[in-house]
Amino acid sequence: MDRGFLFADGIYEVTAVLDGRLVDSASHLARFQRSAEALAIAFPWPVDAIEAMERELIARNGMEEGTVYLQITRGVAERDFLSEPDSPTFVAFTQPKRLIDNPAADTGIKVVSLPDIRWARRDIKSVMLLAQVLAKREAAARGAQEAWMIEDGFVTEGASSTAWIVTTDGTLVTRPNSRAILPGCTRAAVEALGLAEGLRIEERAFTLTEAQSAREAMVTSASTFVLPVVMIDDRPVGDGRPGPIAAKLRGLYIAAARNSAT
Amino acid sequence: MDRGFLFADGIYEVTAVLDGRLVDSASHLARFQRSAEALAIAFPWPVDAIEAMERELIARNGMEEGTVYLQITRGVAERDFLSEPDSPTFVAFTQPKRLIDNPAADTGIKVVSLPDIRWARRDIKSVMLLAQVLAKREAAARGAQEAWMIEDGFVTEGASSTAWIVTTDGTLVTRPNSRAILPGCTRAAVEALGLAEGLRIEERAFTLTEAQSAREAMVTSASTFVLPVVMIDDRPVGDGRPGPIAAKLRGLYIAAARNSAT
Repeated sequence: MDRGFLFADGIYEVTAVLDGRLVDSASHLARFQRSAEALAIAFPWPVDAIEAMERELIARNGMEEGTVYLQITRGVAERDFLSEPDSPTFVAFTQPKRLIDNPAADTGIKVVSLPDIRWARRDIKSVMLLAQVLAKREAAARGAQEAWMIEDGFVTEGASSTAWIVTTDGTLVTRPNSRAILPGCTRAAVEALGLAEGLRIEERAFTLTEAQSAREAMVTSASTFVLPVVMIDDRPVGDGRPGPIAAKLRGLYIAAARNSAT
Repeated sequence: MDRGFLFADGIYEVTAVLDGRLVDSASHLARFQRSAEALAIAFPWPVDAIEAMERELIARNGMEEGTVYLQITRGVAERDFLSEPDSPTFVAFTQPKRLIDNPAADTGIKVVSLPDIRWARRDIKSVMLLAQVLAKREAAARGAQEAWMIEDGFVTEGASSTAWIVTTDGTLVTRPNSRAILPGCTRAAVEALGLAEGLRIEERAFTLTEAQSAREAMVTSASTFVLPVVMIDDRPVGDGRPGPIAAKLRGLYIAAARNSAT
């Protein structure tokens, strides 16, 4: 009778773990809190207590590298749109995964474009993920690893990642945050690293055609860090091989993540 | 680890029970099957077996009047967008409720209008219900019992019901089925009863303004049957009292439902 199961009335976060420590934890927990506030779901514990629990979970499960998953729902109650459970449900688990030695970093990934059929509050990291599930399944059926979703002619984001391109003049482009996309924690970290490295970064929407004729394309997410995109809808990006800017940003991000993990 | 809880990767149905028997059962089970097909979720049992289980559930719970809730999800598996569980999850429960003696049938209900922020596949009865939850909460906060959702200037449907108006010339109007709304089982039954009664029925979209100046307005759903709408965004509909066509259709529907329940 959990409202997460019955109504998708819940939120989640996925945080990377490197060397047994949390990556970008403050950023993920701040977003977790914002998502809860947006839905008026009671935040069950102070952020510090959640972080301490995550560390204990990692220690007990002996996980060196992988992800911690957190989910809060409005709680358990008789099924009614308006039911107000006494307390929220809070679930957490770890998933071991090789994040650094990811073969896709060397091969690049293929992306397909699909209409963005999601709801209008994509800035809330809710478990309303069925559109993304369908997009991922369609991408897999077409031999791709990610779907880029298109709305009003522009790419919004990947089904589980932020979409980026590098224009022919070397500018890194990603869509500005709004209700149309999730404000990516890895996106923010990569943007800061790119700026510190002296890259030109522009926050604006881009079309599929612009992406296909870009010098490079890439995706960022908590569990994949930075991955080059080498093909979009069967059209190679650049020379069809992973580009140097994606590789550089991946290296910078991994170094910074290891350094700052807590 | 159920994908219903983690990804809203599931579908549901709510069927009314009168005199211990199922109302419009064939219609609900056909829609349940269509929803499963649309998501490529394995349908766990033949329709006949599901119906037999519903009857056993009603008998074991000794429920005379109320609803049976059915939910199928893609199943339980390690969290991954692409995980393919061995078998679906199938959950069912009953909720006793007085459906016929509903005070709202005499008082009418108040409706508020809200932007329709849902995803684009509202024809699938999925558990992606967070937008509806938020709409119901907003309606309740404003003293209303239902929210009518507005898209491109037109009413799509209620958060948990089909929206109808009766125009000044006595025509019953409701929006045609499409991906923009759920194909209501009660809507279909009421439409057939209205036609048999000699009412003019038009399937077309209507605006909020048209609804506010209509002779009557009403909603239909499996758990409320037919309810008159007497106020929309603080503007009374007609003379602000339940109208005769809604009352007539409610009576016809209840008589037909009792008669044909199985």
